Amino acid sequence: MTLPMGRIAFGGDYNPEQWPREVWTEDMRLMRGASVSMVSVGIFSWAQVEPRDGEHTFDWFDEVMDNLSANGIAASLATMTASPPPWLARKHQEILPVLADGSRMWPGGRQAYCPSSPVYREYATRLVRVIARRYADHPALALWHIGNEYGCDTPVCYCDVSAEAFRTWLRARYGSVAELNEAWSTTFWSQRYDDFAEVLPPRQVPAFNNPTQQLDFARFSSDELLGCLLAEKAVIRELTPDVPVTTNFAGYSHALDLRRWAEELDVVSFDSYPEPFDSRAHVEAGLTYDIYRGARGGQPWLLMEQAPSAVNWRERNAAKEPGQMRLWSWQAVAQGADAIMYFQWRQSRGGAEKFHSAMVPHAGPGSQLHRDVAALGAELASLPEIVGTRPRNDVALVLDWASWRALELDARPSSDVKQIDALLAHHAPLFDANVGCDVVSPADDLGAYRLVVVPNLYLVSEADAARLTEYVRTGGHLLVSFFSGIVDESDRVHLGGYPAPFRELLGLRVEEFLPLDTGSALQVELLGQTGGAMLWSERIVTEGAEVLGRFDDGTPTLTRAKFGQGVAWYLGTRPDPGLMRALSDHVVAEAGVEPVLAGLPSGVQAARRGEFLFLLNHNPHGSTVDVDRPMTDLLSPGKGAAKRVELPARGVAVLR
Amino acid sequence: MTLPMGRIAFGGDYNPEQWPREVWTEDMRLMRGASVSMVSVGIFSWAQVEPRDGEHTFDWFDEVMDNLSANGIAASLATMTASPPPWLARKHQEILPVLADGSRMWPGGRQAYCPSSPVYREYATRLVRVIARRYADHPALALWHIGNEYGCDTPVCYCDVSAEAFRTWLRARYGSVAELNEAWSTTFWSQRYDDFAEVLPPRQVPAFNNPTQQLDFARFSSDELLGCLLAEKAVIRELTPDVPVTTNFAGYSHALDLRRWAEELDVVSFDSYPEPFDSRAHVEAGLTYDIYRGARGGQPWLLMEQAPSAVNWRERNAAKEPGQMRLWSWQAVAQGADAIMYFQWRQSRGGAEKFHSAMVPHAGPGSQLHRDVAALGAELASLPEIVGTRPRNDVALVLDWASWRALELDARPSSDVKQIDALLAHHAPLFDANVGCDVVSPADDLGAYRLVVVPNLYLVSEADAARLTEYVRTGGHLLVSFFSGIVDESDRVHLGGYPAPFRELLGLRVEEFLPLDTGSALQVELLGQTGGAMLWSERIVTEGAEVLGRFDDGTPTLTRAKFGQGVAWYLGTRPDPGLMRALSDHVVAEAGVEPVLAGLPSGVQAARRGEFLFLLNHNPHGSTVDVDRPMTDLLSPGKGAAKRVELPARGVAVLR
Amino acid sequence: MTLPMGRIAFGGDYNPEQWPREVWTEDMRLMRGASVSMVSVGIFSWAQVEPRDGEHTFDWFDEVMDNLSANGIAASLATMTASPPPWLARKHQEILPVLADGSRMWPGGRQAYCPSSPVYREYATRLVRVIARRYADHPALALWHIGNEYGCDTPVCYCDVSAEAFRTWLRARYGSVAELNEAWSTTFWSQRYDDFAEVLPPRQVPAFNNPTQQLDFARFSSDELLGCLLAEKAVIRELTPDVPVTTNFAGYSHALDLRRWAEELDVVSFDSYPEPFDSRAHVEAGLTYDIYRGARGGQPWLLMEQAPSAVNWRERNAAKEPGQMRLWSWQAVAQGADAIMYFQWRQSRGGAEKFHSAMVPHAGPGSQLHRDVAALGAELASLPEIVGTRPRNDVALVLDWASWRALELDARPSSDVKQIDALLAHHAPLFDANVGCDVVSPADDLGAYRLVVVPNLYLVSEADAARLTEYVRTGGHLLVSFFSGIVDESDRVHLGGYPAPFRELLGLRVEEFLPLDTGSALQVELLGQTGGAMLWSERIVTEGAEVLGRFDDGTPTLTRAKFGQGVAWYLGTRPDPGLMRALSDHVVAEAGVEPVLAGLPSGVQAARRGEFLFLLNHNPHGSTVDVDRPMTDLLSPGKGAAKRVELPARGVAVLR
Repeated sequence: MTLPMGRIAFGGDYNPEQWPREVWTEDMRLMRGASVSMVSVGIFSWAQVEPRDGEHTFDWFDEVMDNLSANGIAASLATMTASPPPWLARKHQEILPVLADGSRMWPGGRQAYCPSSPVYREYATRLVRVIARRYADHPALALWHIGNEYGCDTPVCYCDVSAEAFRTWLRARYGSVAELNEAWSTTFWSQRYDDFAEVLPPRQVPAFNNPTQQLDFARFSSDELLGCLLAEKAVIRELTPDVPVTTNFAGYSHALDLRRWAEELDVVSFDSYPEPFDSRAHVEAGLTYDIYRGARGGQPWLLMEQAPSAVNWRERNAAKEPGQMRLWSWQAVAQGADAIMYFQWRQSRGGAEKFHSAMVPHAGPGSQLHRDVAALGAELASLPEIVGTRPRNDVALVLDWASWRALELDARPSSDVKQIDALLAHHAPLFDANVGCDVVSPADDLGAYRLVVVPNLYLVSEADAARLTEYVRTGGHLLVSFFSGIVDESDRVHLGGYPAPFRELLGLRVEEFLPLDTGSALQVELLGQTGGAMLWSERIVTEGAEVLGRFDDGTPTLTRAKFGQGVAWYLGTRPDPGLMRALSDHVVAEAGVEPVLAGLPSGVQAARRGEFLFLLNHNPHGSTVDVDRPMTDLLSPGKGAAKRVELPARGVAVLR
Repeated sequence: MTLPMGRIAFGGDYNPEQWPREVWTEDMRLMRGASVSMVSVGIFSWAQVEPRDGEHTFDWFDEVMDNLSANGIAASLATMTASPPPWLARKHQEILPVLADGSRMWPGGRQAYCPSSPVYREYATRLVRVIARRYADHPALALWHIGNEYGCDTPVCYCDVSAEAFRTWLRARYGSVAELNEAWSTTFWSQRYDDFAEVLPPRQVPAFNNPTQQLDFARFSSDELLGCLLAEKAVIRELTPDVPVTTNFAGYSHALDLRRWAEELDVVSFDSYPEPFDSRAHVEAGLTYDIYRGARGGQPWLLMEQAPSAVNWRERNAAKEPGQMRLWSWQAVAQGADAIMYFQWRQSRGGAEKFHSAMVPHAGPGSQLHRDVAALGAELASLPEIVGTRPRNDVALVLDWASWRALELDARPSSDVKQIDALLAHHAPLFDANVGCDVVSPADDLGAYRLVVVPNLYLVSEADAARLTEYVRTGGHLLVSFFSGIVDESDRVHLGGYPAPFRELLGLRVEEFLPLDTGSALQVELLGQTGGAMLWSERIVTEGAEVLGRFDDGTPTLTRAKFGQGVAWYLGTRPDPGLMRALSDHVVAEAGVEPVLAGLPSGVQAARRGEFLFLLNHNPHGSTVDVDRPMTDLLSPGKGAAKRVELPARGVAVLR
Repeated sequence: MTLPMGRIAFGGDYNPEQWPREVWTEDMRLMRGASVSMVSVGIFSWAQVEPRDGEHTFDWFDEVMDNLSANGIAASLATMTASPPPWLARKHQEILPVLADGSRMWPGGRQAYCPSSPVYREYATRLVRVIARRYADHPALALWHIGNEYGCDTPVCYCDVSAEAFRTWLRARYGSVAELNEAWSTTFWSQRYDDFAEVLPPRQVPAFNNPTQQLDFARFSSDELLGCLLAEKAVIRELTPDVPVTTNFAGYSHALDLRRWAEELDVVSFDSYPEPFDSRAHVEAGLTYDIYRGARGGQPWLLMEQAPSAVNWRERNAAKEPGQMRLWSWQAVAQGADAIMYFQWRQSRGGAEKFHSAMVPHAGPGSQLHRDVAALGAELASLPEIVGTRPRNDVALVLDWASWRALELDARPSSDVKQIDALLAHHAPLFDANVGCDVVSPADDLGAYRLVVVPNLYLVSEADAARLTEYVRTGGHLLVSFFSGIVDESDRVHLGGYPAPFRELLGLRVEEFLPLDTGSALQVELLGQTGGAMLWSERIVTEGAEVLGRFDDGTPTLTRAKFGQGVAWYLGTRPDPGLMRALSDHVVAEAGVEPVLAGLPSGVQAARRGEFLFLLNHNPHGSTVDVDRPMTDLLSPGKGAAKRVELPARGVAVLR
């Protein structure tokens, strides 16, 4: 199942229920003018279409759908269940979520439902059935948008209903309470359970919560939210078996196990909100695009939401600089997006997000912002041949959801060690060097990659460790950073000296972790280059590995070991960005990996999808790029082919 | 109804229940020695006069009242309801307030009652009836002191009783749930209510609370507390129709709608606690005095509480510098106070405020602090003719309670934009230039002012916007700063481009807000002078206005438009204090406004009430002031008239 | 009753239930190799030995005890009650503790019980009876380890059961509610109680909690936890009257009244975790060792837990530097410890503390860490004659638990004034000068000391003040710092001017406190030396005292008064460390106190126990020490006697 749109979808969340009919007419006119091809409708419409229990008022929504099809606009039709209406909470207070301290969350915001609530699911699926029946054959229906930003506001619930569901989940996982005790190491602190009935969610406790209880609760919570999605999907598949389904993921957090969820979707959607105040925001965004593209093995994904300019939910909400919205949109396309959509079409007059920018802002369609949106719409519409193409990368970055969750539990050697930081530390030098990179799971087949980077795989199963080992044995290049291979799936230390599953592969052992204090740094020399190192050090004892980097007291921190046909690097600290770049470049070159384009000016990104070469100038000044053969910039078709491309400040070129 | 005292009232909170009888005798002697003319009694006496339900023990309090009248001291008699006794909370736990997270507040501090509790109000008014009957004809009774610092510790309550009261209030405000849905923009996030019964206070929710729900809850909470006051006032008016009533406001917050409350009082009282560590504390205090004087249209107000020296409730509690207590007291008088009173008469031996300084401190009546208090009492007693006089100002500063509340809700363009900061930014340059200023409501008649300043009127009704427009059309000068005129009374954006209700008046539109990041600044030139600008910028498109200030990229940020007979200025950023002073001076001069006295040394405040000219030297060093004709310093009567006044460090002169 | 071990005990927490049987065998072998003489067993074994209500499974524990005795290792046998098993919480949810906001704490961490719960105590003592019966005559049993780190995670509980117990405790303390009202100053804020039934724990309230209510609740909570210990001790004494009992105190907090608790123990145990990132950590540790040695009048104490290297519960957990673990262990011995023990023997594979270092770390017995542990074990075993010896000091530092608690309540002149800071400010210059010091209670007999230092005795009874006064009258030297002698046992100000009970003794009065703002400092001259002063100043009026230190505005801050046969110093600020050292040296010299050893290099600590002189080089470089006569270093027996000792970096010598 794929999207049948034949172009890069362009549009946004469309919430006509906030506006009177006369505005709807203008909306259609303006959408056509802006080359809008798809909109997401109905996301928060439950209270409007079912104003009271079991009574439905879809007439107005029929009109919306008809308007769309009449104007050639596809509907990404929401299941409308993202926020239950107040009447449901009043009728069934037990659907309201509860925090770890036992306090309840109430209606008045959004997502006020317990992920495990059978009552919520029953009402939700009843509604989905009505919607799916009503619009199954509507010509506008192109995509099902199940829920919305699952887990963004209510990722977990600690109520008694959730507790019972957690026990059910644990029974299924462990079979016996003895197995649970073994996995949870309950001999510690007198936590042994005699019966599943005694087990609770990791509510507020004195001292630290049991870490495996926390880890399993994170797994459970992701599964429960997925259960909500699957319940709705089952109804949809039954009634509209040919319409693809998606759900839009919100930012990146470890609340939802992306890889597991992606299996259940036809296409992955992502809501991307880089921080315009951050001059390196595009680098971090680049990582997220690689993550979401990786969720279904490189399949193109949908940028389901971005802000035309400022958001409303940060403490200080920066507007985007002139050209930045277009640039960042093309960056998403360059990194695999087949849709560029926004939250939202028309800026709300009231409510909590009225200061979130929109495609039609408060300043109206005559504003620069709207003109920029319309221009981008036309531009994207002009290049339908990009759709469906994919990058082809030789480097893989390993990310595992269970490891991420476990890494960031409390009572670790250093709470400063964070998964995203580790990913960024390794991804940024690749990004800056224009080396294309896929984000993969340690369970994936890695054979096609020349280089695999493991930034911080704290938790690893024996099977995954064996797969990585085999990858090197058969000729792969591997770069592993510190605090990897430490615990098993139950957060129990792999015995035999750190990092036990990788010791032979890496040719070393780590005797002790020596995390650094906040603000302190060590001097380090890596591959002949000196600089600072932060965050972490450790006592490494080599057992066959060659030492290629040392702290200034002579202790090793970078090693390289030949293993089988391959090479395994190990990095025991967090060097400063300059050193990381030098190290990354060295390892990349040794692995025989080529960048998309070499020798680019700093701040210029090059990315390839199929036959298209994207050049993205993230600088606030013009930059010049030379390519090796005359190419045509499809965004400036009049110019003809050339070997030199002049990119204005925040400019974009799509070459072929 | 006015205070019949014929002098500037002087005294403090008097809590004899904390002390044995022998101390009472000393109290009377010391009060006479310190020229005390009025004390507040009974504020926290409920548990002492009604030790158990319905049993009253007023004998001791009779004695207190008799002592006062015997010594010629007036009583500001409290209704004693500020903190209910523990027995009431035990008997009726439902009177205890509840936080947004559902947790209850308990006895053991103060103000532990739900503002909407009918049980609390019933017990409170029953007590007030007993007190009013008993002391209706007592010669000491001069003023009713209803409650105490309403809302200081418990401004809101989220309990089920409050929820029901909120629904009643909403029914009265909106009539139908459809109207509420419209006002609250509940089409957003599926928040539509089908019945008032579904509506709740803005309790803890996932994501952001509905902003209009929050705004209405703030209005409701102020009204509920006012309802407590009005219930007591009704009893008082019935039994003592000729005795004026007041209540003392605590600091400045938006919890209580001051203008609405002031209508119900005969005189406004204010508790003022400037921070002695802050060398500009008197400037901020000056703003508060203008606010409270403005609450009843310039009527003199009562400084009901100040600290003789340190308070106890800050993290670090600075003592006042020598002379500072006298200086700050005279500042209050200069800005309209007809009473100078303290918390409290005698420093407590125990309890939570025993380290709050008092007129008779722990160090005893022989201390410097007590001698300073007594000297000030005598000084104030010597100038009864000041009483009742008023300043006459040509500049008005606009402040609106609903706008303040709405401005500081979450999910705004920048959470750094705060109402008090905006007021201070505009008030301080007027204060420093000794330009007298009244704080007014946008609903006031502004015709008498030469210049009206609107620091940040985020929320404005069509009617108020029209009134400001008419003010300029008929010849007024208006200075409006950014983020004004954005939303209506329901926090819904005024459509038509920002700031829609002022666009024609100001001759411009704002396309987009560009708030600044923390710590960042822009270079700006205003009226030919350059400096820094912080906090905010925006994309201004002029539509007739003249540009008189620009950022260094050339974009406009200060404009001036002729409109009708008047002039309308607009400022789109927050310039640094030096630039603000230059701008303010320019606008003031253009409007033909004169300072009280020009050319004063920095740090010397000049203020006028009636025929009295006050000179206040806030500097820690001496300053010299020249006046235009020989005047007599009433505080140094022996010196005779002169044109030059030598003010010692922190010195004061009252000239005539 | 004393420990019958005849050597400095060496070992750690031993938790074999976390490991399979084959590991137990290796444990015994490794313990022998590391000269382990005692281990703590069973601390968190409740859930393992009583897997369900009333069913016991002690077979495995018998084996553990038998292994110990077979290997000549003594058992510090825990009562196993530190953390109740989950089945008990499920059966009796009312044992779970409740926070001040009313929210409950759940199982899943540790110490999840209400200190006042009769149900918890019943189940706990039932278990203790079973254990004590079973092991009364076991040859391994050497010491009872009651509970574990009482109050570390759950020092207080606000539930209704606790409330009722608090009322019972208050009835016993006060007899009548009138007495309670007097002590609690309930005339303030209308807090008068008419009946004990109205009194509650200091739960969440609006504004500040009543301070005496808080103070009494702290006393009560300490007593309730002590009640838990005493209930268990009663069973133990009944069944094993000859076995000594201890409990291990966690860090230093005012939760438990150490002096009161120590009376009930046969020996005091302490868990010490200095922060390796802090280069002065040994100085603060030195204070704690003096505190715990003082708990039973100088009796040797047990270092029951320390980390072999890093802990796991800080945000960033530093490893110890090479040699630091040995150095710090010897420091504890030098300051009176007769046991050096660790948490824990074998590093856990799972659970919340798996990253806490252990005697057998994850890196295994071949690691440097384990080799260092074993070497220290052998070294300690070689010097059994140290056991039981005591220091003999001429300086006493006064610390009182009630005063500490009261000092750190809210609504004080400055929340920056902290008891431990005050102790450290006075203890550090003594420590750095190698002047031995005992920490005493103001109720102790001080006659034997030449100098008594009172860093900050905010709360003092008339009797204790009289004892200190008498101490000076009869010839003692006393140094009192600011904010001492302010309130009585009920946190009521001693009337008569600050500090009333010491005014005559010190020859001065304090008119007003002038705390300093954060980050600000004053210039001060003390005894002819100038420097900075922080935190505090005050308006001192001398009444007979000589002024020996002044701020640069000339106001006094250091005074000296002759009183009777003695001398009383008063310090009204917190000078910088250099000035504190000069002042301390001066006062020490005037009092005729000699250091253990004079003229040592900075960073070298000298301490004496009996005939043993300990030299501890806390520097990361070598240091040379000259002693006045040839002495032998018992740790380098081959070297022979010498007058010069060369200490390597972090080196130790034990001379005789």
